[in-house]
Amino acid sequence: MTVYDPLDFIKPYAALIEQHLSELNLPEKPETLYGPQRYILSNGGKRIRPVLALMSSGLCGAEPDRALPAALAVELLHNFTLMHDDIMDQAESRRGKEAVHIKWDEPSAILAGDGMFVQAMICLQDLPDDVNHKEITGIFLHGINTVCEGQAFDMEFEKRSDVTIEEYLRMIEGKTAALISASMKMGGLSAGASSQQVDQLGVIGHSLGLAFQIQDDWLDVMADPETFGKRRGGDIYEGKKTFLMLSALKRCSSSEREKIETYLNHLPMTDEQVEEVIGIFIKCGVHEEAKNLSEQYYRKAVSSLHKFEDSDYKRDLEKLINYLKNREK
Amino acid sequence: MTVYDPLDFIKPYAALIEQHLSELNLPEKPETLYGPQRYILSNGGKRIRPVLALMSSGLCGAEPDRALPAALAVELLHNFTLMHDDIMDQAESRRGKEAVHIKWDEPSAILAGDGMFVQAMICLQDLPDDVNHKEITGIFLHGINTVCEGQAFDMEFEKRSDVTIEEYLRMIEGKTAALISASMKMGGLSAGASSQQVDQLGVIGHSLGLAFQIQDDWLDVMADPETFGKRRGGDIYEGKKTFLMLSALKRCSSSEREKIETYLNHLPMTDEQVEEVIGIFIKCGVHEEAKNLSEQYYRKAVSSLHKFEDSDYKRDLEKLINYLKNREK
Repeated sequence: MTVYDPLDFIKPYAALIEQHLSELNLPEKPETLYGPQRYILSNGGKRIRPVLALMSSGLCGAEPDRALPAALAVELLHNFTLMHDDIMDQAESRRGKEAVHIKWDEPSAILAGDGMFVQAMICLQDLPDDVNHKEITGIFLHGINTVCEGQAFDMEFEKRSDVTIEEYLRMIEGKTAALISASMKMGGLSAGASSQQVDQLGVIGHSLGLAFQIQDDWLDVMADPETFGKRRGGDIYEGKKTFLMLSALKRCSSSEREKIETYLNHLPMTDEQVEEVIGIFIKCGVHEEAKNLSEQYYRKAVSSLHKFEDSDYKRDLEKLINYLKNREK
Repeated sequence: MTVYDPLDFIKPYAALIEQHLSELNLPEKPETLYGPQRYILSNGGKRIRPVLALMSSGLCGAEPDRALPAALAVELLHNFTLMHDDIMDQAESRRGKEAVHIKWDEPSAILAGDGMFVQAMICLQDLPDDVNHKEITGIFLHGINTVCEGQAFDMEFEKRSDVTIEEYLRMIEGKTAALISASMKMGGLSAGASSQQVDQLGVIGHSLGLAFQIQDDWLDVMADPETFGKRRGGDIYEGKKTFLMLSALKRCSSSEREKIETYLNHLPMTDEQVEEVIGIFIKCGVHEEAKNLSEQYYRKAVSSLHKFEDSDYKRDLEKLINYLKNREK
């Protein structure tokens, strides 16, 4: 019996990425530097960003594999950010396995992360000769710096009680949207896209990133915990300033706000407190607001995609967007 | 009365660096990201690497300021490594001021370091249009990766008791020589140097880096502590595997080796133990061996320099090499 896998269309792209990641041939020594790099890369992940880079190359009329150096660069870069984020956030596990700074130690995780950033940049040395190396590098670096800004805002927000929704959106533009947007633009540029096409790819990636992150905040509260793989309200327990939390603080009554703020000042919250906060979210309708905003950004991504000529790659990109939109985890 | 300053010849180069560093215009916010970057850059330092990049451009027949983007990139990169090294080594101060991870915190120091690496790469976007951006970037990245390898070996050596002098030399090739060598090659390439000239610059930088580091190990034991600004034998107290220590372990008697190894297994050493170890160093003559090896590398740097045509820049580079060779701190 053949089981239909809704992700079949992604497999050829993802397989290309896996193959080339396995051919990176990082040296054996020093183990402190390369061991953690091999470990985090072998730990899987959905490879969404590099797949988007390959599809974007196809969308702009070239073979997807022209964007392989750019795709590998964004995947290595993404894994570098995970390695350092896990230290900064004191996260102990990643994708069901020990985080690098737990399996090794913090110095090794800092250093191996730095080394992975270097490897990401080195990947761009293999870009096709007829593309503008400096331009693609510039877009990549701008994206990475915006990721750093997003992470800095995120850390600063933890200590603040007056974060606005505008500030939140700017933060996720950095933490999530910037690298997705850069992945697609770099994929397009690898294919020789026009500057108008590159701009459109940037809009798709940016919208997709915002849609994805706001949906992530929504899933934390509304997803089936079994499917989602995390406990319901995990972000609330930790007092994270998600879209739902910030919007609830704005919309709820002053007594409810006082209550939530008291809970936020005494983290982590208890099960009862989290249930109470979720009750306030539902009452204020912030779950619906988040769902609507996420879907609005997904629609913006699709409508920008429709400005490109029809192709298999365009259809695959639309499938990928729909898959992300309908995900339950 | 005019006091003669032996570093007068460096001042015009260093001033150019300081001016352009102050014009980087890093944004104010997020403060967590840019505050530490501004702080470490304002904390001075000798700016040896960027000065070498500027002089190398002059040596190859162009104006020094053609190498400004490369020079700024290496200085930012150097400061990024200091920020992360201070976390890894748990160093509390740097250039007489609090280290970034002490003044802020570890997450901020990790992130700001990452951001500074990005800024270093961004500097290369301003390279003159007629130079090969990809080639200069490639040399820079290769240098940075070698620095990471050196740091990894250094961390691994702390836990090992069987480090050889060959391994030590490979480690300092990474930690010290790689970025100095890259600085000079990038300076030359900015000036349109031939590949033969670039290779020669690489040899000068590599020799200079090794000479400098071995001399540093020597100064730890032999310098006047008042001039040197650090207590005599500081590396020995910490059990660092310096050139002198490794060579002494190889040359001394088996009873002396046993004694030193016992001390190394019970760090930090006492004043008496350090004096005893210094006594063994002197007896084995490893101080003279280190001094000779350092001078040998300085001579190699000068003789490679002499393959270039005469110019003011060549004379300044020779003065700089001699200044480093004769330094007492």
